[in-house]
Formats: sequence, structure tokens, C-alpha cells
Amino acid sequence: MLKVGVIGASGYSGEQLLKLLLAHPRVTLAAVTSRSQAGKPLSQVVPFLRGQDRGLAFVDSDAAALAASDIDLFFLALPHGAAAEFAKALVPAGKRVIDLSADFRIADLATYEKYYGNHHAPELLPGARFVLPELAPPSWKTEAKLIAAPGCYPTSILTPLLPLVRAGNIISLKHIVANSYSGVSGAGKKAQEMYLYVERAESIKAYGLVKHRHLAEIEEQLSLGAGGSPIAIQFNPHLAPMRRGIATTITVPAAPGATIDALYAEWKSVYDGRPFVQILPTGETPDTAHVTGTNRVDMSAVLDERTGNFVITSVVDNLVKGASGQAVQIMNLWCGFDETAGLV
Amino acid sequence: MLKVGVIGASGYSGEQLLKLLLAHPRVTLAAVTSRSQAGKPLSQVVPFLRGQDRGLAFVDSDAAALAASDIDLFFLALPHGAAAEFAKALVPAGKRVIDLSADFRIADLATYEKYYGNHHAPELLPGARFVLPELAPPSWKTEAKLIAAPGCYPTSILTPLLPLVRAGNIISLKHIVANSYSGVSGAGKKAQEMYLYVERAESIKAYGLVKHRHLAEIEEQLSLGAGGSPIAIQFNPHLAPMRRGIATTITVPAAPGATIDALYAEWKSVYDGRPFVQILPTGETPDTAHVTGTNRVDMSAVLDERTGNFVITSVVDNLVKGASGQAVQIMNLWCGFDETAGLV
Amino acid sequence: MLKVGVIGASGYSGEQLLKLLLAHPRVTLAAVTSRSQAGKPLSQVVPFLRGQDRGLAFVDSDAAALAASDIDLFFLALPHGAAAEFAKALVPAGKRVIDLSADFRIADLATYEKYYGNHHAPELLPGARFVLPELAPPSWKTEAKLIAAPGCYPTSILTPLLPLVRAGNIISLKHIVANSYSGVSGAGKKAQEMYLYVERAESIKAYGLVKHRHLAEIEEQLSLGAGGSPIAIQFNPHLAPMRRGIATTITVPAAPGATIDALYAEWKSVYDGRPFVQILPTGETPDTAHVTGTNRVDMSAVLDERTGNFVITSVVDNLVKGASGQAVQIMNLWCGFDETAGLV
Amino acid sequence: MLKVGVIGASGYSGEQLLKLLLAHPRVTLAAVTSRSQAGKPLSQVVPFLRGQDRGLAFVDSDAAALAASDIDLFFLALPHGAAAEFAKALVPAGKRVIDLSADFRIADLATYEKYYGNHHAPELLPGARFVLPELAPPSWKTEAKLIAAPGCYPTSILTPLLPLVRAGNIISLKHIVANSYSGVSGAGKKAQEMYLYVERAESIKAYGLVKHRHLAEIEEQLSLGAGGSPIAIQFNPHLAPMRRGIATTITVPAAPGATIDALYAEWKSVYDGRPFVQILPTGETPDTAHVTGTNRVDMSAVLDERTGNFVITSVVDNLVKGASGQAVQIMNLWCGFDETAGLV
Repeated sequence: MLKVGVIGASGYSGEQLLKLLLAHPRVTLAAVTSRSQAGKPLSQVVPFLRGQDRGLAFVDSDAAALAASDIDLFFLALPHGAAAEFAKALVPAGKRVIDLSADFRIADLATYEKYYGNHHAPELLPGARFVLPELAPPSWKTEAKLIAAPGCYPTSILTPLLPLVRAGNIISLKHIVANSYSGVSGAGKKAQEMYLYVERAESIKAYGLVKHRHLAEIEEQLSLGAGGSPIAIQFNPHLAPMRRGIATTITVPAAPGATIDALYAEWKSVYDGRPFVQILPTGETPDTAHVTGTNRVDMSAVLDERTGNFVITSVVDNLVKGASGQAVQIMNLWCGFDETAGLV
Repeated sequence: MLKVGVIGASGYSGEQLLKLLLAHPRVTLAAVTSRSQAGKPLSQVVPFLRGQDRGLAFVDSDAAALAASDIDLFFLALPHGAAAEFAKALVPAGKRVIDLSADFRIADLATYEKYYGNHHAPELLPGARFVLPELAPPSWKTEAKLIAAPGCYPTSILTPLLPLVRAGNIISLKHIVANSYSGVSGAGKKAQEMYLYVERAESIKAYGLVKHRHLAEIEEQLSLGAGGSPIAIQFNPHLAPMRRGIATTITVPAAPGATIDALYAEWKSVYDGRPFVQILPTGETPDTAHVTGTNRVDMSAVLDERTGNFVITSVVDNLVKGASGQAVQIMNLWCGFDETAGLV
Repeated sequence: MLKVGVIGASGYSGEQLLKLLLAHPRVTLAAVTSRSQAGKPLSQVVPFLRGQDRGLAFVDSDAAALAASDIDLFFLALPHGAAAEFAKALVPAGKRVIDLSADFRIADLATYEKYYGNHHAPELLPGARFVLPELAPPSWKTEAKLIAAPGCYPTSILTPLLPLVRAGNIISLKHIVANSYSGVSGAGKKAQEMYLYVERAESIKAYGLVKHRHLAEIEEQLSLGAGGSPIAIQFNPHLAPMRRGIATTITVPAAPGATIDALYAEWKSVYDGRPFVQILPTGETPDTAHVTGTNRVDMSAVLDERTGNFVITSVVDNLVKGASGQAVQIMNLWCGFDETAGLV
Repeated sequence: MLKVGVIGASGYSGEQLLKLLLAHPRVTLAAVTSRSQAGKPLSQVVPFLRGQDRGLAFVDSDAAALAASDIDLFFLALPHGAAAEFAKALVPAGKRVIDLSADFRIADLATYEKYYGNHHAPELLPGARFVLPELAPPSWKTEAKLIAAPGCYPTSILTPLLPLVRAGNIISLKHIVANSYSGVSGAGKKAQEMYLYVERAESIKAYGLVKHRHLAEIEEQLSLGAGGSPIAIQFNPHLAPMRRGIATTITVPAAPGATIDALYAEWKSVYDGRPFVQILPTGETPDTAHVTGTNRVDMSAVLDERTGNFVITSVVDNLVKGASGQAVQIMNLWCGFDETAGLV
């Protein structure tokens, strides 16, 4: 059994990660830290875990002690900035680290700092890898010391879009429009008026226009996929009255002569046999409710002959494939476990 | 007091219309028909109306009898096709008719038939007017015999977009992408599995891609606004887990040199003083929950300097400004009442 | 037009009150105070009111200035304690005051202090009246200087129950069990973790067991109805995943020989002709969704022959009949307006 | 690996059962039948299962063929009546059968027929056992040929209440009132107007008063627990705006001298060490959202000194501990697997 630790586990992604790790057949959850909840049993803070927390309690976060422990792999479920601080202690100590924050998602330091401010551990960037498991070059498993798990919006956008950008002859690289609708857990567990039940029920609204932070990793990945030529997309995030789930709808002009069959052929060449990407036939559309609790991306596309656009739709559970499930999938692959261990 | 009748009032739009008319200070609700509910008191079918239905019951629909009655104005809350049949009896009898169906929204017969099949009363089309009250040429009040109230999606799209198309120098007429998210009442009161609570809660999904029927009236109006040059837009409708409301987000390239100030100036020139269109400052975004039960469109826009696109967001209550409230607003203006009578 | 003011209007009840008063045909809203929102236009804080706020802004609360103003009637939408402070300034100045807090709901000072702590204006209690309009002795209209509008739970419980207690021969006064389920707005607009969307969706839980504050007024009123013999009931409040609404289910043993017809006859003798109490036939059950936005109580009862219990169900909108609508109804009756003015 | 089959798997309980069995470490899902869905892949009907259905398709239900197959154990997820028909074929063939319908939950034939009409296989009743695993006498594992899994409401009521009835000196056996609030999936996947999203959102209403079918098994079990003296309770079921979950609140007079400590001691003597019953401290209350997807009952109690009543609250996921999860738990125990295998 692999010994794992979770640093900063009191938010919604952290809770989901605890659920997945406590039920995982190949790991032992050895430490769970939270500055604000230290001393409390897991199930007191995460009542879903009643009867399942094996007596574990939150402990305070002490980077040096964790670096000196016998824990093999750490998940960082911290805000950006704080994550880098822990990585600085753990990576040099030889620990495997999977970071759920933005700190190591962006290879280009200047881009990071434009969106997030000062980087707390730029020296770790060369050894870090952004790993969307279905799309990252396989060398990451041996090269990386530190893995950045992608964000929720980026996962829902890159999974359908990046293979098409890479293919080169299927879609236009201009006029890409991605509208995403996220369940409220995407905002984190924040006691703010705008996230109250009464405010969010029956409510859809756009927010974060026009420069949401997730653009940084989306556009860097797309640009890399296009051989380095910079791609800018229109990304419009929204809040929707759901607890979980992201529904993304992408409109992009088809490349001259490109067909819906060509698009599907490209997708299938990349995703056939991958358990966590499910491609629906053209004409069907995915549904956030069908992926709740799963690590899947469900997606489909249709060609609008009138406009010449492809309309691509994808759904994920923001807390699973969009965060903690993907982190577990990364661990599974990195550590040689079955890719689907502990996941559905 | 104006005597009004509602034909086909047992769906969600019909219910909303009954609420508005029963509380309206200038009208007497004189007849309410429903084939399926004939004989039942209004409040038995629409329990919201308990204590308010003034003893009214649904009656069966008899077009000839209604045409011979002393009722001044009829609202048709029927499926397309059925609406035209009633209009054929009522309009020649000199009744004012406001139709909430699609039958008279599209001036071009061929376009109508491409989306909806055979038209049941094409002879009435020349006398009919599509009236989005804030945008229709004012002559409709005297010319029209028959008013087509716009659909819910078209109202949410045309209100922000049509003035910009008409202006000519603010937006591109290509690459217009409109994503709309509708509450479930938009689908009508249909006992189908896909509209069950358990299926729709926590669920967002696209549907009707890529040729939703509302495109017919949206594109006809936009094309007329562009002086006749045909405009095709990408319209992506979705179902969202709300009872009511439509949130529309439109991405459109700015015309060369166009600024956000120019866009707002155009909007203000059209909408200043109009009670039911509220323009939010750039940077704020409207929220479906804020217009529930109102006849308003709330909208705003932002210019994305990175992409050169305007991102425009608008919200309506699909059953009020998107259907019954707008029909009442049309009646108010047509009959010389205060525009806001009986509406908020 | 009556000049009215609202003190402390930034919570959910206050918002609802503003909506009702701005649309009321007989009143002019002359002042709206809020310490936290002073200086902001109403519609900035309550976006529902965009286009309807007549240029009004929140002002800071200055009791002396309000007492000296030409405003005729004040609504206090404040926490208990704070309400008494304003009443102390306004009542002696001859203003009519309708208080939505608990400060003057309980005639017995000792009971008040057991549930709420020190009373800030006990000298006003003799002139105050607890007015559930359908049940209060009619003399209140001339005697009272200060009206306490009942709470939301008490309205849902007392409306069906108090007439039966008064009748004396229909129900047992022991073993009364009232379970109530409230929408989240009942908790007020509090930025606390437990009221977040993600926490409350898909969640029902009991709270406030076993001594919720509303018991004080419920039991005092029931005991007065029983001629002074003290009545204690089991009151179990719960939070339910709705924005609004209270559903109450009361189980109470039938008195020996009492029939369902006797119960209905009693209800009808009290409520016939009252627009805001709607009695459903035995066997039907009311639904919170049917009273949303209305000032109604819908209610029904059934006799369980197996157990000898009556099961009584009632529903209200906690923000309307349970708070602001009832306050407007009280104003209507107090000032000689039509009871239903501005209400549905 | 145990070979199992599911008969009638197209409803919500059936879907949940498929999820659990496909992920279960000790069983092979060998056959899944549905008359209405025969021929379709599982994941076409249950999109949650995309990528996980191992190529399985629904087959038509042929009792004789199933009896002759090499499948070891069958789950019946059928309406009552239909379940008995299948049991008649499978039990004599030596198959283990776990029935999720009401057909074998009630030992007394006359009671069954009063609530459900004619029994289709009364000859199987003597060999059948009603098994709430934490409360059934352990002999069921060897004696039974056919297990009736309890209903959702009964599980939420009997788990806290039956031990107290059995104890004899803790609660009164009169004046027991149980109010239950169920998510909409409890009604099954029925395309009826009353279960539409628009009807059920923001809606709580009582239904099935005063003789819900689940009373039959609740009262039979309680009466057996009381040594045969008949117990009648007031059971008030309600629909609540959730997909899943049941929240039950029970009010019962304390027996003379009984304390909250005595109640907790009794509970602990029965449930200590049982993974699927979690007892919360007095003063805390359970929450449906905390057990969603789990096989747990969370429960607590408080003594109201004012009324002399215990107020007991419990929550379950109606589709898991209230149906399919409990059926899997029964299988686990019956077949000698770990009780928690495949469950959380």
C-alpha cells in the first residue's frame, strides 16, 4: 500500500479527495492536514465520512515534518501560493507531489505572474509537468517530480479541443468561443453572500468576464498544441444552480473541407480505449448529471452546415475529473496502478 | 374595462397569463378556454389562483362563439398551427388578437414552412406584426390586426443584439454566437421522462442543436435589421436546472474601431426611458434570479481587448418578458394603457 | 397616499416588503433605512427592483429624525432588540408602527425574556397587539399603537390550530406535534457556511430542537385560546432545500366524538370570506409552491380513523404571509384600505 | 466471483443497483432484464454507466430461462405482484433471491392483501424473511430462501424506533408520530405531471395521508418487537425538492422515568460496531446530504423536558440504504462477504 498525505483538505476538492483515497484499494491515507480544522476527526468536518474515516484526524500543516515522514506521495489541495510553499519542502525531499492548485500548471513564468502574481517557487517549474492524463506526452511518468493537475474548466475545454488543435486541419484557430457553466462548488467553500442557497437557486449568471484565471493554462496548452503559435479564445464562465458539474459548449469554425467524420476520427484516434473519455454520437449531447461522481468527460460534436461551425459539448464533475478524481488518476498512472483504481 | 379572453390557458405560459390578467387594473378576464380542462374552475388547474379566480372556469374552445362574443381582445396561448386556426375566426370578426405561438412571427412564408410545416392561415400574414415592443416600428399600433408576441429565446437575443445590427458600425455580422440556458418551464408542461425532477436537477445539457425553431424569427429579424442582407448566427440552446429564466451570452466580434462606449451609447439611444430594459454597467453581469416574475430584460456588455469580441449577457423570465408579460405589455401599448399596467 | 417608511430593509423580509410597498396602490414609500447599505440606491442592493425604485436610496437610521418626519406609518424589519429601540422613539411621536420582529409578539414579559433576553422597551407592551389578522379580536384596529406581526412558523401553525383550540371540543390539547419545513430564506441573509448553496441543496435537516424561539408566541397564543390553561406543543423545525415556503404538518388527537366535518365547520365559521386563508377539501394536501409570492395560507385536514388523530397540513410563503405580506395586510386593515390591496 | 442477476432494472432503484454491482469486488453481473429496454446496452438506458457496463445489454425477462441458468443470486427490482411471479420460478430452482418489492415484506397474508391486493405467491411466505440487517434475528442467514429487503421509509423509521420498542421501558407505544420527507426519486421514474421539475422544485407537500402502504411493514415489525401487541403509528409522508434522501422525524412520549442516556445506551447496545448505523450525539441532527450515495442511517435523539417527548431524527439515501444498498448489504452477509464490500 502506498502511503499518501493530503495537505489542506477542508475545502470541497479536499473532501472529495478524502472520499476517493479512503476507498482506494492501493493506498493508505497517512496524514491529512488543515490549519483551520487541526485536531478534529475527519468525519466531524466531512460528515459524509462518518464511519469511514478510520479514526483519522486533521493535523496542522508542518512542511518540514511532512518532508521527513515516511509518506510517499502528497496531494496539495491548497490555494495557489500556499501550494508552492509546500512543494518547496516536499519535492527536494524526494516526495512525489500532485498539486491541485494553479502554481505549476503554467510553464511560462511571465504568464503565471500576469494572472496570479509572484510565484513562490519558480525553481521547481522546470521539473513540473501539467498532466491531463489522456493528452500529456507519456514521458511525464518518468520525468516529473511534481505534477500539476489541470483545473476544472481547462479539463472540460482541453479534452475535446486540444486534439483538434493538434490535428491542424480540422478546426480554425480563430473565433473559438467556449461557454462554461459551473456548479456552485466550483467557487469553493466560501461563506460569502453570493454563494448562499437563496442567491444561487434559480440563478444563472456570467462572472469573471473577460479574463478568468483559467485562461492562462487553457491558452498555453492550446498554443503548445498549435506548435507554438499563440491562440486566444473567448472563454465565458458562468455560475449555474447545481452543486457540481461543468457543462462546456464550444463553437469553432470548421477548417476548410473538414467534416464531422474527420473530427470524430481524430477524437477516436486519441481516446479509444481510454476509460475516462466517452464520446457520444453526433446529434446526442452530454449531460452533467450523467457524470456526477465519476471521473469522466462525456463529449460530442455536431457540424452546423448553415454556419460552418462545429458545436462541441462536454461535461465533467468539477470535483472529480475537474480536480480530485483526476489527481487520483494521475497517481494511479504514476505509481503503476490500474488507471481506474478507486474511480468510476 | 377591456374584456379579454385567453384561448388555451392550461400550460405554463397560460397560467402566467391568467395571473397577470386577473391582477390587471384595466381588463376583465371574460373567457378562458382549454379543451383538456373544460368545466374545471381555474384554481383547480392553477392552484396559485386559489381565492383569486373570481369564480371563473375553463370553457371548451369554440372559435365561432368566441368570434361572436363581446370580448374585445384575445390572447392565443396555443401550439403553432392551432393558433392560426383560431386567428382565422377571430381576426375577420374584428377582434384584436395577440398570439403567443410562432404562427405569425415569421413574415416569410417559406421560412415558416421550413421550420414549422404547413401554415394554416397564410392569408393573415400581411396583416400580422412581430412586435418586440421596444424595437418594433411604432406604426404597428395602428396597422396591425394580429400581433405575434416574440418567443423567449428571441427576446433574450434580439433585445441586446438587434439595435447593434441596425447601427451598422458596432459589431461584425459574422461569427455571432449565442448560447442560451433556459429553465425547464421553457419546455412546457409535458409529462415526459426527460422533464422529471430527478432527471433535470443538477443537470445542464445542450439540446436542439443545431437548428432550433426559434432561429427562424431571430435570423429574420436580424436580417431585416441589417437592411435585408441575410445573417446566420450560431444559436446553442440548453436546459438548466431552474423553473424559470433564460440566460443568454452572445459573443460577437467588434466592428473595426468600435468601442464599448459606442455600444452602450447605441443601447441607450434605443432604450433610455423604457421601463422593461435595464442596462447594467460594463463589468457587471445580469442574473436570471433578479428578473424572475418581472417583465424585464437586464443586460450588459464588455469588450474583450484580447480577442476583439464583445461579450453580451442578457436575462429574462421566459414566462413573463419571454411570453405572457410581453403579451400584456403589447396589449397595454395597443390599447393605450400605461405600458407598465399590471406588470413589474 | 399614505406615507410609509421601512426601517432596516436589507434582509430578505425587507426586500420583499419593498417589492410590495413600491407596487402598492395606496402608499408612498418615503424612507428606507439600512445602516449597512446607507447611500446606495435600492436597486443596487435589491436588483429585483431595477427600474422600479423611483430613485430611492437607503438612508442611515436616525430614530429621532424619523419620529420628527411626516411619515405616517413605519415597518420595523429589524432584529429583535433593535426593533424595540426604534419603537421607543416612534410610538410616543404618534407614528403607527408595525413590527416584524419578536419584540412585541409576546405579551408576557417573563416569557419574552426567557426566550430572547432583556426587553428594551417593556413600557410599550401594554399598548402593543399581536395581530394575526384573521384571528385577532377586531378591537386591535382602534386600540393598538404598535402591532406585532406574527412570525412565519407561528402563522403556519396558529392559522389552522388556534380556531380548533378555541372551539374546545374538537381536538385534544395534549400530544400536539407540529413539524415544519422552511425554505432557506427563513434563516435570513446570513453569510454562514451552513446556508451555502452546496450545503443546503439536496439537504433536509432538523434544527433548533427542542426549544425554537417561535414556541414562545405559538404557545402563548394557544394558551390564551384555551382560556388560559397552558398548552405545550412539540414543535420540530427543519431546513428544506427551497428558497421560500413553509410546510407544516400537525398531528393532534381528535377530541372524543369529534369528526372531520366538525373540524371543517369550525374552520369555515372562522375563515369563510377571508381571502388569504384557503381551505382545501379533506384528502387534498396543500403545496408550498402554490402559495409562493402570495399572502395565503392553504390548509386541509384529515382524520385518521386508525389512530384517532387529525393530520392537519398548512403552507405559507415565509416572506409574504409569514412576514412582509402579513405586515401589509395589517396596514391595509388598520388604515381602512381594501384588505387585499397590493397583495395576491 | 458470485454470479448475480437483476430482474427489472430500468427504474431508479434498479439503476442504483447496477452501479453498485458493477463496482462490487465479489460479484459478476451476469444478467440484467427489463421488458421495456430489452436489447439496449446498459449505458444507453443508464448513461451514468458509460464506459463501465462491460458490454452488457438488457435482456427480456424469461423466468424459466433464468431459473435454469448458472446464476447464483437474483435481485428482484420489480413492482409488487410481478416480483412474486419471478420468485415462484427462482426460489424452487434453488436460487437465492433478494426482493426489493413489498411482496415478501409482510408475514401476515391478510395484512398484505389489505394494502396490496391479492398475493401472487403466498406459498413462499413461510420461507421468506424481512431482513433489516442490523435488526433481523441472525438465523435468517441460514433459514431463508428468499429475503425481502425493507422499504425506504420503513428503514428510516425502524432503525431508530424498533430497538426502543423492543427495549420495553424507554418509550410509550402510543402517540408515536413519524413525519418523513422523501426526495422525488422515491416515487419512481414515472412520467407524470406531478413529478416534473417545474412542479416539484420549491415544493413540499404531504401525500398518501393517512394510509401509506409502507405502514403495513412498519407496524407489523413494531408489533412483533412489542411481543405481539399491536402498535399503530401516525405516519405522514411528504415529497421534498431533492433527488434523493429521506429525513424522518419521530416524536414519541418517553416512558415514565426514561432518560436520553437510557435511549442512547439501548441504541449503542444494538448498533455499536455496525458500520451502516451512525449515532450522532444528542443535540446534533443528521442531514440527508451527508448520506447521499452511502448505505448509512445517521440518527440522533433529544429529550424535550417540557413535553416529555423524545424527538428522534434519522436520514437515509432512499435508493441506497432504502433500497439497493441494503439489498447488497444483505447479499454480502448472506454470502459471507465483508458486510461493507462494494458499499460506503
